[in-house]
Amino acid sequence: MKIALAQINYHIGHFESNQRKMLAQVEAAKEQGADLVCFAELAVCGYPPRDFLEFEGFMAECRKVIDVLADAARGIAVVVGAPASNPVPEGKRLFNAAWFLHEGKVIARREKALLPTYDVFDEYRYFEPATEFEVVEWGGKRIALTICEDIWDVPTGDVSDEDFDPMYTFRPLDRLREQQPDFILNLSASPFSFEQAQTRMDILKANAKRYELPLFYVNHVGAQTELIFDGGSAVLDSQGRVYDEMPYFKEGLAIYDLNDIKQNPRDQERPKQKMALVHDALLCGIRDYFQKLGFSSAIIGLSGGIDSALTTVLAAEALGVNQVRVLLMPSRFSSDHSVSDSIELAENLGIRYDILPIHKPYDAFVQTLHPLFENRSFDLAEENMQSRCRGLMLMALSNKFGHILLNTTNKSEMAVGYGTLYGDLAGGLSILGDVYKTEVFSLAKWINQDVEIIPRNIIEKPPSAELRPDQKDTDSLPEYDLLDRILYQYIEKQRDPQMIIRQGFDEKVVRRVIRLVNINEFKRHQTAPVLRVSTKAFGMGRRMPIVARYLS
Amino acid sequence: MKIALAQINYHIGHFESNQRKMLAQVEAAKEQGADLVCFAELAVCGYPPRDFLEFEGFMAECRKVIDVLADAARGIAVVVGAPASNPVPEGKRLFNAAWFLHEGKVIARREKALLPTYDVFDEYRYFEPATEFEVVEWGGKRIALTICEDIWDVPTGDVSDEDFDPMYTFRPLDRLREQQPDFILNLSASPFSFEQAQTRMDILKANAKRYELPLFYVNHVGAQTELIFDGGSAVLDSQGRVYDEMPYFKEGLAIYDLNDIKQNPRDQERPKQKMALVHDALLCGIRDYFQKLGFSSAIIGLSGGIDSALTTVLAAEALGVNQVRVLLMPSRFSSDHSVSDSIELAENLGIRYDILPIHKPYDAFVQTLHPLFENRSFDLAEENMQSRCRGLMLMALSNKFGHILLNTTNKSEMAVGYGTLYGDLAGGLSILGDVYKTEVFSLAKWINQDVEIIPRNIIEKPPSAELRPDQKDTDSLPEYDLLDRILYQYIEKQRDPQMIIRQGFDEKVVRRVIRLVNINEFKRHQTAPVLRVSTKAFGMGRRMPIVARYLS
Repeated sequence: MKIALAQINYHIGHFESNQRKMLAQVEAAKEQGADLVCFAELAVCGYPPRDFLEFEGFMAECRKVIDVLADAARGIAVVVGAPASNPVPEGKRLFNAAWFLHEGKVIARREKALLPTYDVFDEYRYFEPATEFEVVEWGGKRIALTICEDIWDVPTGDVSDEDFDPMYTFRPLDRLREQQPDFILNLSASPFSFEQAQTRMDILKANAKRYELPLFYVNHVGAQTELIFDGGSAVLDSQGRVYDEMPYFKEGLAIYDLNDIKQNPRDQERPKQKMALVHDALLCGIRDYFQKLGFSSAIIGLSGGIDSALTTVLAAEALGVNQVRVLLMPSRFSSDHSVSDSIELAENLGIRYDILPIHKPYDAFVQTLHPLFENRSFDLAEENMQSRCRGLMLMALSNKFGHILLNTTNKSEMAVGYGTLYGDLAGGLSILGDVYKTEVFSLAKWINQDVEIIPRNIIEKPPSAELRPDQKDTDSLPEYDLLDRILYQYIEKQRDPQMIIRQGFDEKVVRRVIRLVNINEFKRHQTAPVLRVSTKAFGMGRRMPIVARYLS
Repeated sequence: MKIALAQINYHIGHFESNQRKMLAQVEAAKEQGADLVCFAELAVCGYPPRDFLEFEGFMAECRKVIDVLADAARGIAVVVGAPASNPVPEGKRLFNAAWFLHEGKVIARREKALLPTYDVFDEYRYFEPATEFEVVEWGGKRIALTICEDIWDVPTGDVSDEDFDPMYTFRPLDRLREQQPDFILNLSASPFSFEQAQTRMDILKANAKRYELPLFYVNHVGAQTELIFDGGSAVLDSQGRVYDEMPYFKEGLAIYDLNDIKQNPRDQERPKQKMALVHDALLCGIRDYFQKLGFSSAIIGLSGGIDSALTTVLAAEALGVNQVRVLLMPSRFSSDHSVSDSIELAENLGIRYDILPIHKPYDAFVQTLHPLFENRSFDLAEENMQSRCRGLMLMALSNKFGHILLNTTNKSEMAVGYGTLYGDLAGGLSILGDVYKTEVFSLAKWINQDVEIIPRNIIEKPPSAELRPDQKDTDSLPEYDLLDRILYQYIEKQRDPQMIIRQGFDEKVVRRVIRLVNINEFKRHQTAPVLRVSTKAFGMGRRMPIVARYLS
């Protein structure tokens, strides 16, 4: 049996586009002699469709695409993910289903049993879990047809079954194994994080080995706002060796012969490099945000600091140098080098830059507010006014010319609230909001490895917001190296202060950092969606109350 | 048996405060001769604790409070909601539990079976559902101890079991009924919406009647950011008559004798008035946001329109007239009456107002941006610049004096994106973001029913953003009466365009309105939390993708 895996960049709710892309791959697979072509989980509507699933019309559109694909499945079988209506009144109205189509008909349907409802996932919000399991018999084979999470709840590496803490109460493949399947086919929507690429491969290996079956895995590729799908669809043999890994961050179709996988084993697992993956993921995130919303050009406020410099480089690479323009908006607190470094960067990239000092509007605000401010001294209010003057000018250009303002705040700043709402926290999409400051430096150096695109001075100078004379980030925050390690323990690892302190960190610093994270939830509530590259990003995957009083 | 219901305003994560309030009520209940005192669902940590539940230290704090309450339960039983650890490794790590405490010990624990995971609820994100059911035997009675949703999945009114579309596959009370309980005790965290007060009473009646048992129901009161709990704890007899309803939006303790409920039936159900409820809910929402975050004063930009006027009246009532100040920021497009009407309102209320025209900073921006704008004509960019100048001045006063900026955008504007990000969409809390424009008018008239607090001219003049000469909202939007009816069908009722058109609305208008709702998701993503008063508010209860292309 020849099995084709189609790795596609879907667009949520864009049925016409999703259908067109799938039909093209059905044809291509047929031409190349495939017996079966497999698409990803919820491929028909894109992932995650979120509350659109609650609209009957949305479900009707899904069903129409299924019918079209069934009709195209002539001389080839098509396996595709789409929501399905639950025929019984009890329970949730939908299933997250894999549809097996052949010769104009739905010849089988299997539903997802394990519904991820944690981090960025909300599946039990919409779907009833499957409780019955049956292999699909087709073409003389018995196929263990599963959807994403159904194969995820297994121990990997050296963890034994006894030490493993499963998130669910059973494993679908334990049930399917009793029916002696010939191989596992898994339709996924598994979003990227820089640790995920390796974790996912470990999970695939663990399943292939545990059940002693070849495994075909097909994933989405492309970004849907904050969630980035990296692709990496793969085929493993029954000993858990990687027969093939499809490309990351690229669409593609690949065809595999089931016999060949058994007869000519090989191990094609590719090494995963963190900075290369993060770089490619951010590019994908930027590109798809623009392409899917129908925008083409970006604007960025260039401060002379490393965050805006890195954002600009990534945007230029993703959108093209003619689609990115930057604005330099010095104030009287700006150092000379912040302008000269920015110009150097813009010239290195060959992008348009303009310089508009903010002192006129800033002074006008100071003058207008003077009767109410009386003789109070310069403080946070004036600092934020500068940042907001810049935000206003960027948004004015955005509105006038249709550019999307990109936000340049990094994850460390987002975490501790080191940023001005409606000022430097403005923007349609946050590029670095899931990249800690120390990782920003690493990524900048990785980009500069062959050619100095980002001027060295931008990388080497001490970080400063330049909102008052001689300001440094370290005036109000710990050194980033220390800060980021504490933040990682609290945010990614969800460790309590006591546990972090026990690791050797200073108690006062730990408590202060965690307090800053907690009291700044209100700011994160109002910021742009953040491209997710870690296992715990701010946004839909981290849901914290605002008015809580806990470690604050 | 005498049963006390304690209706308390908890604070998420504020264990010290929650414990102190509960201990006081245990003492009060004991003094008044109660045998048992019952607190609400997840009372110990407040509702919703969200991802704090994933932290071990948070769970340890919960357990400490349970131990303190058990120790206080001398001569009285205490029933209280708190998360519990799942002892088996399989499944989610926690249960949503009701703890039955007596004489220093946990004498029983029951877990929630039906886990709401829709709209604002995320319970399956954290909790494993209960699968076993047993009454609690205590004091010679058999108690059907349940938690919130466990009693919600029943048909109400004239709906038969056959026509009912249950959200779950079984009913916990069907299981418990077999054990012949004497009464139902239900611990809840049921947030307010103006339809909810009646719906909830209908649900309580349906359960009491269906199972022919007295029902004791205890709810939270007070607001946690966007979610407002209205209290309304209640006791019903076995025929579904309302023996008592506790106050709405107020803390309280009430003691009921089980025999008396049987022997002296009465029907104390109170009528629910929409505008009175919405008014009280918004006041509660404002007051608790400030109190729980430790802020006292608010600032509002007063435009001369009805939204900012109503917001100001509500804030003054919630926080006190000395804790609210307003800023009038006329531009050259402002009408004279927008200033004079605002002054009249401020004087009616007796609050501080200041007038700061925006033309100086606005002109400075125009001048600064001129080299880049060249000779392009006045458009949305300049309109938004005015709104953002105002947002900047309000935030400057907020930062300088520690006032919280209240957002004045109504639900109709939020829906169609009629507002400026970082301008009039700024603010820490949205007061009217779940109140349609037509409801804003109704509420204003309701407030004015005895005394004209809001100047009549503000209510009667045609709505205008006053960002260009002679602008009216109806230049770009349908009349609000029509707009709001379409929005209600799409947002609250989740009806598809075809269904709405079939109701007699113009197809073009319907498609345009729905398109506006969908393409403005990016704005709502960046706005303040919205006080929720309807069954479908923007925010955590309505989760839509941003880059989707569906009805857009």
